[in-house]
Amino acid sequence: MSAALTIRARPLSAAAFAPFGDVLEASGQPDKVINEGLCDRFHDRARMDFGPGGRAGISIFRATSRALPYACGMLERHPEGSQAFVPMMDLAWLVIVAPDAGGRPGEPLAFLPSPGQGVNLLRNTWHGVLTPLAEPAIFAVIDRIGDTPNLEEFFLSEPVVVTS
Amino acid sequence: MSAALTIRARPLSAAAFAPFGDVLEASGQPDKVINEGLCDRFHDRARMDFGPGGRAGISIFRATSRALPYACGMLERHPEGSQAFVPMMDLAWLVIVAPDAGGRPGEPLAFLPSPGQGVNLLRNTWHGVLTPLAEPAIFAVIDRIGDTPNLEEFFLSEPVVVTS
Repeated sequence: MSAALTIRARPLSAAAFAPFGDVLEASGQPDKVINEGLCDRFHDRARMDFGPGGRAGISIFRATSRALPYACGMLERHPEGSQAFVPMMDLAWLVIVAPDAGGRPGEPLAFLPSPGQGVNLLRNTWHGVLTPLAEPAIFAVIDRIGDTPNLEEFFLSEPVVVTS
Repeated sequence: MSAALTIRARPLSAAAFAPFGDVLEASGQPDKVINEGLCDRFHDRARMDFGPGGRAGISIFRATSRALPYACGMLERHPEGSQAFVPMMDLAWLVIVAPDAGGRPGEPLAFLPSPGQGVNLLRNTWHGVLTPLAEPAIFAVIDRIGDTPNLEEFFLSEPVVVTS
């Protein structure tokens, strides 16, 4: 029996996350200052994609919290659209993604967002399910609304264990 | 000199807000339970609209906080698209909207969202600027990305005062 793969969660940064998607955050210089100087707009920060026959929608997810170490046994992806996760409160959560390796997920990476950070996953990016580490955990999810299932799941032969 | 109009902010509810837009929240029965029972999906809760030649985008707003009583001197609307505000942390904020009265705003209403509530303003809905009542105040804004200004402002002859 081989030992389970263990990976360490790292802080979420735009540079490390770029191959998988966008970090949604107020960082760097704002693109525009509006409302008589009282509001900074960081403009159009998500590479959104709703595929053929789809449209943008906002759904609300309420998820049960998990704890670290966390055993991730399944990765999924959405072949027809991007998917953004915006936490609606201060909470710790985990973002697990993986590069594609010939139609199945390669070795996963795990990120711990800071308060004020969301993510937008590019279309067809392998990722773990929504994994809050505290409750209540309410997220706005901006993704494709359409008639197709738009979901591919891959069950790992052995879970990947994510530690802090 | 006439006395300024004073209005009282009320708790945000979907029923009261319906003429102006959607309350984005995990309320009632979820439309779907996903992730092996660990996540409730409240599906497609925003009446989004990006007008001709527009597309959906996610921008991040970082706004300066105000305090109650708050003097609202200007209302604006976006003739070419809806606009959703999703708070990315636990914070008090104010939502000011007004019905249209012949091309100018009628008497405004003010709402105080609870934690876990966002709003989506319907296209062409008169509203106040983003008004957090605490900091830091980071919001994800899902609105129309396009080449037109998409903004109409109306300066009130006398500010409306919003109280708690």
